[in-house]
Amino acid sequence: MEIKPGPLLQLINSPADLKKLDKNQMHQVSEELRQYIIDVVSVYGGHFAASLGVVELSVALHYVFNTPYDQLVWDVGHQAYGHKILTGRRDAFPTNRKYHGLSGFPKRSESEYDTFGVGHSSTSISAALGMAMASYYKGEKDRQHIAVIGDGAMTAGLAFEAMNHAGAANSNLLIILNDNCMSIDPNVGALKEYLTDITTSHTYNKVKDDVWKLLGKLPVGKTFSRAMAQKLTEGVKGMVSSSANMFEALNLRYFGPIDGHNINKLIDTLKDLKDIPGPKILHIKTVKGKGYDLAEKDQTLWHAPGLFDKITGEIKKKVYEIPQPPKYQDVFGHTIIELAEKNDKIMGITPAMPSGSSLKYMMEKMPNRAFDVGICEQHAVTLSAGLATQGMKVFCTIYSSFMQRAYDMVIHDVAIQNLPVVFCLDRAGLVGEDGPTHHGCYDIAYMRCIPNLIISAPMNEREFRNLMYTSQLESIKNPFVIRYPRGQGVMPEWKTPFEEIQIGKGRKLKDGKDIAILSFGHPGNFAAAAIRDVKGDGINPAHYDMRFVKPIDEAMLHEVFSKYQKIISIEDGTVVGGFGSAILEFMNEHGYKADVKIMGIPDRLVEHGTAAELYSEIGLDANTIAGVLREMATVKKEVTTGI
Amino acid sequence: MEIKPGPLLQLINSPADLKKLDKNQMHQVSEELRQYIIDVVSVYGGHFAASLGVVELSVALHYVFNTPYDQLVWDVGHQAYGHKILTGRRDAFPTNRKYHGLSGFPKRSESEYDTFGVGHSSTSISAALGMAMASYYKGEKDRQHIAVIGDGAMTAGLAFEAMNHAGAANSNLLIILNDNCMSIDPNVGALKEYLTDITTSHTYNKVKDDVWKLLGKLPVGKTFSRAMAQKLTEGVKGMVSSSANMFEALNLRYFGPIDGHNINKLIDTLKDLKDIPGPKILHIKTVKGKGYDLAEKDQTLWHAPGLFDKITGEIKKKVYEIPQPPKYQDVFGHTIIELAEKNDKIMGITPAMPSGSSLKYMMEKMPNRAFDVGICEQHAVTLSAGLATQGMKVFCTIYSSFMQRAYDMVIHDVAIQNLPVVFCLDRAGLVGEDGPTHHGCYDIAYMRCIPNLIISAPMNEREFRNLMYTSQLESIKNPFVIRYPRGQGVMPEWKTPFEEIQIGKGRKLKDGKDIAILSFGHPGNFAAAAIRDVKGDGINPAHYDMRFVKPIDEAMLHEVFSKYQKIISIEDGTVVGGFGSAILEFMNEHGYKADVKIMGIPDRLVEHGTAAELYSEIGLDANTIAGVLREMATVKKEVTTGI
Repeated sequence: MEIKPGPLLQLINSPADLKKLDKNQMHQVSEELRQYIIDVVSVYGGHFAASLGVVELSVALHYVFNTPYDQLVWDVGHQAYGHKILTGRRDAFPTNRKYHGLSGFPKRSESEYDTFGVGHSSTSISAALGMAMASYYKGEKDRQHIAVIGDGAMTAGLAFEAMNHAGAANSNLLIILNDNCMSIDPNVGALKEYLTDITTSHTYNKVKDDVWKLLGKLPVGKTFSRAMAQKLTEGVKGMVSSSANMFEALNLRYFGPIDGHNINKLIDTLKDLKDIPGPKILHIKTVKGKGYDLAEKDQTLWHAPGLFDKITGEIKKKVYEIPQPPKYQDVFGHTIIELAEKNDKIMGITPAMPSGSSLKYMMEKMPNRAFDVGICEQHAVTLSAGLATQGMKVFCTIYSSFMQRAYDMVIHDVAIQNLPVVFCLDRAGLVGEDGPTHHGCYDIAYMRCIPNLIISAPMNEREFRNLMYTSQLESIKNPFVIRYPRGQGVMPEWKTPFEEIQIGKGRKLKDGKDIAILSFGHPGNFAAAAIRDVKGDGINPAHYDMRFVKPIDEAMLHEVFSKYQKIISIEDGTVVGGFGSAILEFMNEHGYKADVKIMGIPDRLVEHGTAAELYSEIGLDANTIAGVLREMATVKKEVTTGI
Repeated sequence: MEIKPGPLLQLINSPADLKKLDKNQMHQVSEELRQYIIDVVSVYGGHFAASLGVVELSVALHYVFNTPYDQLVWDVGHQAYGHKILTGRRDAFPTNRKYHGLSGFPKRSESEYDTFGVGHSSTSISAALGMAMASYYKGEKDRQHIAVIGDGAMTAGLAFEAMNHAGAANSNLLIILNDNCMSIDPNVGALKEYLTDITTSHTYNKVKDDVWKLLGKLPVGKTFSRAMAQKLTEGVKGMVSSSANMFEALNLRYFGPIDGHNINKLIDTLKDLKDIPGPKILHIKTVKGKGYDLAEKDQTLWHAPGLFDKITGEIKKKVYEIPQPPKYQDVFGHTIIELAEKNDKIMGITPAMPSGSSLKYMMEKMPNRAFDVGICEQHAVTLSAGLATQGMKVFCTIYSSFMQRAYDMVIHDVAIQNLPVVFCLDRAGLVGEDGPTHHGCYDIAYMRCIPNLIISAPMNEREFRNLMYTSQLESIKNPFVIRYPRGQGVMPEWKTPFEEIQIGKGRKLKDGKDIAILSFGHPGNFAAAAIRDVKGDGINPAHYDMRFVKPIDEAMLHEVFSKYQKIISIEDGTVVGGFGSAILEFMNEHGYKADVKIMGIPDRLVEHGTAAELYSEIGLDANTIAGVLREMATVKKEVTTGI
């Protein structure tokens, strides 16, 4: 189905084309751009509501500024579809997030207009400040540097660190605060309340007007001279202008708030701001999902709704004839409630992912025991450590790639103190369409090197529930990591009774001959499929689901290495320093000399696509494993040493 | 030499003893406490100026609050000496930072008064909020939770994340902002200026007074009614009280600033605050080094001066008869200037460690090219990435253990975009007296799993200079890590001419027989000493300085594994997933079957002591290596496989 952009949008192959149009055509350009996003995303999928909210801003920025010489950094970047369409990627846009297609985020290798690759939040101010400092150093005084950041992303510490520096640095930096009160879920925290306050409140705008009005009416007479009146006015002005605003407190000149959907006002304001040197912030109010009614009303659902009928608003869901396995995240979300109902020490913490982690169910049911702390992975972990010192059993759920943000807190606040926090690492392994910024490739390696941790991964829903159950037992005195992938498990009947798992004990799934497969976590299912596949060839490998990479099941490994000379290790993490390396370390320490084939995520960036496409590309699927089994089975048992 | 505490301090074995004294004795207690710190630290060493600055606060907190039921969290913790002395550790205090002695930081295993272990900055608000939320949940409404945090630590994003949450959470939390304008070096950034502003400025305190005075004089007459006057006053009050302060903007009730050395005022204020529920912040002004003149005057020098004569103030330096090797940090600090003089693209970035990293020399000489960005590791890395997009060659210098704070930024902003930032990781390996929070044990493992990185470690000064030289060449298109330890190198004549090093190429230091040692970085010197030691025994191992762990020198490893069956790998990093594991991964991939002995930092916490004591304890010194060589030499060449 061909999707045609509107008549003006058709003409725009670069910002230069946009600039040829008249300012009063920008409203129409915006409407066409919005419609094109709706048309394409409804049919091809992708993030949705965020880009609709910044249509006017995208048009205004490219109309006013001299991009790419002027440098535009989009925070997070899932709102940059309009930007992509305006900068030469209109016709390629239907390939958005597809294998070998456009990235769903700005990406330096994709376009010179994408000045900084993103995906995680809150990096834009630091990056744009770096660009601005480089321009200042080079004497490019006319060059503009613009960071567009949401109010949700503004809660992450990195954004504050950058503002603290920006306010004291020589730079030509414009921060645009895109205030829509939403991340994927509604924003939380004091900053959100504050932004609402300065936008709507009686204590600032309205009172400010009142005060100026009253000061203007000051009766000047004998006891109150003109000089006194002026001094009072100046004094009040001084109090307000230099301290009244928390951004001004950080020495950023504050402008706004203005309506981010008023294209004329945006263009005029941005033009004015071009001439004001130094670090400054423009506060704009926008509506996430703007222009698509349903999205405006349920912004979380329409963050990334999948395919939908743009006319009826019906979101297309696959219909299955047989019951499907649940998503791992939902197993987490429901199981934590079951456990918390029996163990009143359990609490749940998520940094801004109540929907994505499914902690939202517990937040609804037990609002005094489950909390969204905002886009604050660092705080989420140290807060969990603080709670743990008081005997609380905290399930802190964070995506694998976002946990990278809290790495020091895991080491410094949890592991060194050996506090029994439970980390549920969602989205471990390749996540699919979000691509390299979101793949959870590194956690096995970066967690395994930390003392005191217990690190586990379930192969299915039953195992997951049992690991969660085990992790909250009083007897567990160590931090406990449970990592699991995005998407579905394998057990439609998943609500199995809880059983304690012995720490560091794997499961032997089957005995075999010559070859043993050691798997860690969900990819054990790929291995199981491969084993079924090669059965007809008379190949009969053993299969062990190791469950724990730390502590690793040494008794089981002694059994494996005593019986088998050919070993395959399988994990959905990097092959550098991960589960496979743990097997090699054991083998070396105990003097075994088997041949080990390490299968995992290779030591290079894996781009975006469906998870299935990507696992096939890197050779971590049942097919490839079956091929490796066949190849191994034909190799003689004698070990050859050679280059 | 016996050091006697003063007459009152002698009586204080716990806060209960302190509370038995009269409030008007607290001044004397403070003076005795200060004197005892000076007496002990001058003779036994340790951090100095920070604890002197909070003597009165330490006394006041334990006098007013019911510790340990009320929970006191010291941020960073090197200022907690007074707290330790008042809480049962007076007589043990001379063992501070010594092997098997008291930790230089609060530590949960050491005392119930140490509610949260620290070392890195800015964790206190998150941790105390966690405690407060647990108390709220348990219904312990009377329980107090106090975080003491410096204005330097306040610039780290984690502190902001915690305040954003605290301002919106139900909790009984008191944040004490210990404002002394100093970290180890003077603080930087907009927040510092803001705090100075609200303390001293005309725009707030003074103008505030003026405005209230003038409002009081408002002439009420025909055109300006009493109601209008009241409305104006209320309006101004509203503008000021709810928005005038950036902490109030985050919904933290703000009190202060007050003089943190006025013990009576402190006690009275803390008593008042006990009765005010909810999250609040008390801003106190203190002087780092208070009460010791020289320390007040040069706070950076007296942060941790080493031993000194407390009367004359003379800092005792060891006198050597022969020239000593430089510190690695100074090689960095001087070499970057040499390089920057020839390459105008070079910039230097440090997060609050100008002295510790020796970037201060460049900051003095090239103030437009070298920057301290505050305690902001995350921002330091993303800023460096932003600069790198503009063709700048940034040397971003961060301690190994602090780099844990910026882990996501290394992956997400630098490695995924393959930007050629140079990371100089100082304090890699065991750092000595600062202990487990500061040991740089994990970086080889946590960096090695990231694609695109080049990871190197110099064995000496010449190698270090050549790696720095190589890293800034135009031909280097990847991120480049250079890790090196705290303390001295090995070459008194270190200013060698620059030579390019081929990426991923090691050095063969000597051929040998039967055994090969592969070392990475500075511990190569321990290996070299061991080799000299065993020469007399007729043992003659080969020695390879691998230089790079990524990419690793495969040609060299093929040579090694072809010639030797007994291999020792040596690194000052964890044995889990580190350099040794890289050797095993290579060996396995290429089908070699040698015996590899991996020597490094074991997979457990290593406590504090001198670096020499700790390396001896873990068996990573020349002696132990020599022992391993002797043992290996006696083992028959035949490989035995066994359990």
